[in-house]
Amino acid sequence: MDSMTVTATTQRADEDRRIEVGLRALLDRLDATTRHVCGYHLGYWDADGVPTDGGGKGLRGRLALLSAAAAGAGDELGLPAALACELLHNFSLLHDDVMDGDRRRRHRPTAWAQFGVPAALLAGDALSALASEVLAEAPSPTAPWAVRCAAATTRRLIAGQVADLAFESRDEVSLDECVRMAEDKTGALMACAASIGAVLADAPSELALGLTDFGAHLGLAFQLVDDLLGIWGAPERTGKPVLSDLRSRKRSLPVVAAMESGTPAGARLRTLYLGSDAMGEAQAAAAAALVEEAGGRSWTEQRAEEELDLALATLAALDMPPAVAEELAELARGLRGRDH
Amino acid sequence: MDSMTVTATTQRADEDRRIEVGLRALLDRLDATTRHVCGYHLGYWDADGVPTDGGGKGLRGRLALLSAAAAGAGDELGLPAALACELLHNFSLLHDDVMDGDRRRRHRPTAWAQFGVPAALLAGDALSALASEVLAEAPSPTAPWAVRCAAATTRRLIAGQVADLAFESRDEVSLDECVRMAEDKTGALMACAASIGAVLADAPSELALGLTDFGAHLGLAFQLVDDLLGIWGAPERTGKPVLSDLRSRKRSLPVVAAMESGTPAGARLRTLYLGSDAMGEAQAAAAAALVEEAGGRSWTEQRAEEELDLALATLAALDMPPAVAEELAELARGLRGRDH
Repeated sequence: MDSMTVTATTQRADEDRRIEVGLRALLDRLDATTRHVCGYHLGYWDADGVPTDGGGKGLRGRLALLSAAAAGAGDELGLPAALACELLHNFSLLHDDVMDGDRRRRHRPTAWAQFGVPAALLAGDALSALASEVLAEAPSPTAPWAVRCAAATTRRLIAGQVADLAFESRDEVSLDECVRMAEDKTGALMACAASIGAVLADAPSELALGLTDFGAHLGLAFQLVDDLLGIWGAPERTGKPVLSDLRSRKRSLPVVAAMESGTPAGARLRTLYLGSDAMGEAQAAAAAALVEEAGGRSWTEQRAEEELDLALATLAALDMPPAVAEELAELARGLRGRDH
Repeated sequence: MDSMTVTATTQRADEDRRIEVGLRALLDRLDATTRHVCGYHLGYWDADGVPTDGGGKGLRGRLALLSAAAAGAGDELGLPAALACELLHNFSLLHDDVMDGDRRRRHRPTAWAQFGVPAALLAGDALSALASEVLAEAPSPTAPWAVRCAAATTRRLIAGQVADLAFESRDEVSLDECVRMAEDKTGALMACAASIGAVLADAPSELALGLTDFGAHLGLAFQLVDDLLGIWGAPERTGKPVLSDLRSRKRSLPVVAAMESGTPAGARLRTLYLGSDAMGEAQAAAAAALVEEAGGRSWTEQRAEEELDLALATLAALDMPPAVAEELAELARGLRGRDH
């Protein structure tokens, strides 16, 4: 690593640490049982309470810190913004895992698989409440606006999950519907994270709205890359089995793009997806080949690049300290490396 | 009815109507599916979307309206307060029904029994988000304080539900623990409802805190009466089968008071409660007789009276318009009539 990369890595670790300290302090407001489940989910300790080596990537939290910095504010506003976004993200993961019946996340049993559905449900409820609470406590006259952003984001997370669940029982799902769902499930929270620090800092509306746009494009790019990883990602990096999205017949963006391609490979993929039981490895490998042959992989890669370009172009037009703009751009470009 | 009762009834209906109009407008912010589930739960329409004759009692909402009036404010602050409390109450009902496996509420299938667990879970999440949102939108410099009250209340609702679930798998539960649980599950939200309008109206802290105390005593009295109704209430009024809490071996306050009485009847009740399958009618009737014989019924009735007296004494010491104080007292005394 060159010295600039070392500096960036150190800075990232420091941001993650400040966010973790803040999250831990918020968990201390909860009853002991709910606190334990939340801390397990966040990766702070194992099911027996033994400390583990730590939390997730904190991408949304870092975005929120930078969003405050873009408007000239420091941790006094950036940190509440960052904590709220990480809390909302983990609230939705906890509840989605229950609804989707997913038993594993980050190489461990999910909270409901470990502690039961009621415990995971209450843990999610608690993180959602803490998100409003930490924003309402922020020392800013615009704190109510930040609470409103968070609530509106939650409504979109819900709408996205509703669509995701509905798609499972439908024969046909259009690519437009899939993109909309990704915009709600992933884009909305990224848009919130990229702007909520600026909202708390009472930034001019051009900056706050511009950052929202930046985050929305970034979020969609993130989901497109995530869907590529769900098929072709290395299990040791994704924490999921190889080809996992195909095994569970998930209609992710590359799959639906392939199905809608009008190619013979797309038609064969549709037929393969008609069953409802999990696919075996050979069948899933055949499905992956069909997605690729039908152009689903290249469509997704190209769209991810486009969204990333849009995010960067939006960012370049905004008035903020150059160092902050560069960090935001760096964070955005970092997505590109995820699928290698 | 005399003319004063008619006036009070008309006024109550008018309050309920204003709250319902506000809730319906908030539901319109949700995606169509989640809106449908929420409106079903609130009693606005049936599972097919056909309008029904309406919502619940709105006790918490009315308390919140009066709480704003106590501080000299009208609907501009009372209504956001009322909507938030009704939203939080129904958020917790939706999630508790999932966790408790309860299939019926208000003479109809519960939301999860009707639409599935994911739909009910998301509906609860949505109501919780709308509660923060409507408070953050209130035209008041103290809106962030109201959001903080709501979030802290949600944390206590969660702690109460955690305790309730934990009690089910424990052999021994003390009466103190049961009272604490009722204070969290019922008292906290009543305390919030009784004070949050005053918080939004930037009332002097003596008034806001006094109203919190009033609501906490009222809430505990409410739960004590509710537990009496869960055993001896008329099914056509409670919407539950006769003796329902005993059939499911629920350790409600009268039951635990009886078990802790040190009487032979209390000891026989413990033995009867050792099994885990639902009780038949004859067995439940025998349990009810034992609760009564062991003094569990009279303890609960007396404690409910004491809490009500404490609520009224607290209220009497507060500085507010006499007409509002009288309405709050009337609302509190109304609890007494619930078990007749």
